Amino acid sequence: MNPRHFTFTAGDLGAWRIREIRTVKGDPLAPANRLQITNDIGTETGTWALHGVTSNERYVNQGEKDQLVARQEGLGRPIATHAALIPIRKTAGWWSLTQDRRREILEEQSGHIETGIRYLPAIARRLHHCRDLATEEPFDFLTWFEFSPADEPRFEELLGALRATREWDHVDREVDVRLTRID
Amino acid sequence: MNPRHFTFTAGDLGAWRIREIRTVKGDPLAPANRLQITNDIGTETGTWALHGVTSNERYVNQGEKDQLVARQEGLGRPIATHAALIPIRKTAGWWSLTQDRRREILEEQSGHIETGIRYLPAIARRLHHCRDLATEEPFDFLTWFEFSPADEPRFEELLGALRATREWDHVDREVDVRLTRID
Repeated sequence: MNPRHFTFTAGDLGAWRIREIRTVKGDPLAPANRLQITNDIGTETGTWALHGVTSNERYVNQGEKDQLVARQEGLGRPIATHAALIPIRKTAGWWSLTQDRRREILEEQSGHIETGIRYLPAIARRLHHCRDLATEEPFDFLTWFEFSPADEPRFEELLGALRATREWDHVDREVDVRLTRID
Repeated sequence: MNPRHFTFTAGDLGAWRIREIRTVKGDPLAPANRLQITNDIGTETGTWALHGVTSNERYVNQGEKDQLVARQEGLGRPIATHAALIPIRKTAGWWSLTQDRRREILEEQSGHIETGIRYLPAIARRLHHCRDLATEEPFDFLTWFEFSPADEPRFEELLGALRATREWDHVDREVDVRLTRID
């Protein structure tokens, strides 16, 4: 098993209570009570299960990485009892663009990396890639965010900024799952 | 199943006869008679099976892509009865580099894309990514090449040029499987 592989299973198990599932664009995800995060790839019995793999940097350059590393904090902070799982899919047109064109849209036009840096360390984040798994997945990316309840308004602001960019013209499905850690 | 997923199974089945397996660096692959290429992900019964997914461009820019598209030919040409499957793995150090640093080594220092273009249309090629599958794979990339028997010396020249680059300092395992199509 790939140790960078994660499965997010919605159902009645797991350390995170699902507060709300908002459909931002495209088909919804079915309601469920809890979310379980595991590394395995076995047969899941939940309402739905999403799979993704953490990977190497696809767009970040060395100067940006230095800023990220200096400011970011890890997952699992005691104060970060709120979370969001945001699965998105991008268009076939996006994926047919060459690397330089995607970087141009993502950062030079949309400031995706720069915007994310402004919300560090409050918003911690882990990105999972789904598109190159052997199984056909309903989304291309699963981003997992953790923050304190007091920072949730700032998280909304971050999402609003990203969703208003040119990059988001290339997003054709997005669901926003909000969660609270069960102590 | 992801339609971009391919399995290369070595054993006694398949449309390609294995002529030779050369260990270039690191552990070898076991000898076998034939190679079968399928899209499925089921339980393979061969001597070994390698898995990979074709994906979006990771380094090629739009100008380079225009040259590639203008010159390249597809797989399955009747004259292309010889083939090579070259699985490689890159170091952990390579994967920790940011996108700009990897592009700098791959193209500005090593001319990987430019060199490949010089051997078009003689050498047709399909790249498969293995590193972000849910299963842990022994290689990061599987490249499949097809060419006519008369072009095999030019293919050797291409490999020699690539293996002499700075990029190849970051390759820690490489096997070179040579094949002939069974008519």
